[in-house]
Amino acid sequence: MKPWRVLSSNVLIDRLPWLRVTEQNVRLPNGHVIERYLLADTREYSMVFALTEDGRVPLVRQYKHGPRKLVYDLPAGYLDDGEDPLAAAQRELLEETGYVVDDWRHLSSVLLDANRTSARAHLFLARGARQVAAPHLDETEDLVTQLCVPEQLLAMVRSHEIDNMATVACILLALDVLNGR
Amino acid sequence: MKPWRVLSSNVLIDRLPWLRVTEQNVRLPNGHVIERYLLADTREYSMVFALTEDGRVPLVRQYKHGPRKLVYDLPAGYLDDGEDPLAAAQRELLEETGYVVDDWRHLSSVLLDANRTSARAHLFLARGARQVAAPHLDETEDLVTQLCVPEQLLAMVRSHEIDNMATVACILLALDVLNGR
Repeated sequence: MKPWRVLSSNVLIDRLPWLRVTEQNVRLPNGHVIERYLLADTREYSMVFALTEDGRVPLVRQYKHGPRKLVYDLPAGYLDDGEDPLAAAQRELLEETGYVVDDWRHLSSVLLDANRTSARAHLFLARGARQVAAPHLDETEDLVTQLCVPEQLLAMVRSHEIDNMATVACILLALDVLNGR
Repeated sequence: MKPWRVLSSNVLIDRLPWLRVTEQNVRLPNGHVIERYLLADTREYSMVFALTEDGRVPLVRQYKHGPRKLVYDLPAGYLDDGEDPLAAAQRELLEETGYVVDDWRHLSSVLLDANRTSARAHLFLARGARQVAAPHLDETEDLVTQLCVPEQLLAMVRSHEIDNMATVACILLALDVLNGR
């Protein structure tokens, strides 16, 4: 199975770092041509399952304009230009919750939408989190943080109360490690 | 936490069912205005963790043009217009692998990108799969199917060989059920 060959490429929208939409005419290895195939490059982000010293995990709840409802997420945020995913995870955890952690483990960096972009979400487990500051939010952020034990998070995934794909993946990957894989 | 108020809305690209990009000026409950906020509505899809009668799971490998590499996925496919997610899961499983199943369980329907769209991936567990036909692929599909035991899939998630977010989420949700939640 070989890559598709790009015959022509045309940027329709360039609003990077948020979104760039490109349409391409591509030739498949079997000779079939697809016209105006769409790519949609989006911004990468990091997400953190942070376990505090007393065994709880900060979970944030905020309004999300995609589904136009409140959504539960683990602390997460977009990478700045050129920023290392781990540095972004540490920065966002501190900004959103005021926690710092020494013991970090990379869980996985997963493709967001393999048909449209190479962009990934970088998922981390951080153990031994301690609060050193109050949350520091910008004026577009309005979120509530609660501390949950891992069993609660799993119950919320099972009941679909937690229904954001990245958050589901990050919780289950973290629990796989914590359960002694 | 209240919804954002939409002040104006402008469709930049309408290529539904694949992609529709909209920019909106929105007012947050705290009075802050965000100009040209981007929404990107994408097509919903279903994905299936299908366990055969002898305890194996079809895994497909195909070229994906986002990362421009071969990607492992569980059988999956886009919903047709108005199609029920379970019907789409059953149709795609049959098309991609030739398997049919009687025992279906909905695992979760998860938000693909909560900042940009309300679109979801619909994740299913199907038990007792049996092959009744050869795969029936269209000319844009070139995929290889292998049968894996669940432990192999978990090992591939842990090693990051399986690195597509939806596939990671679907495998871990299915294993949670199979492990007797």
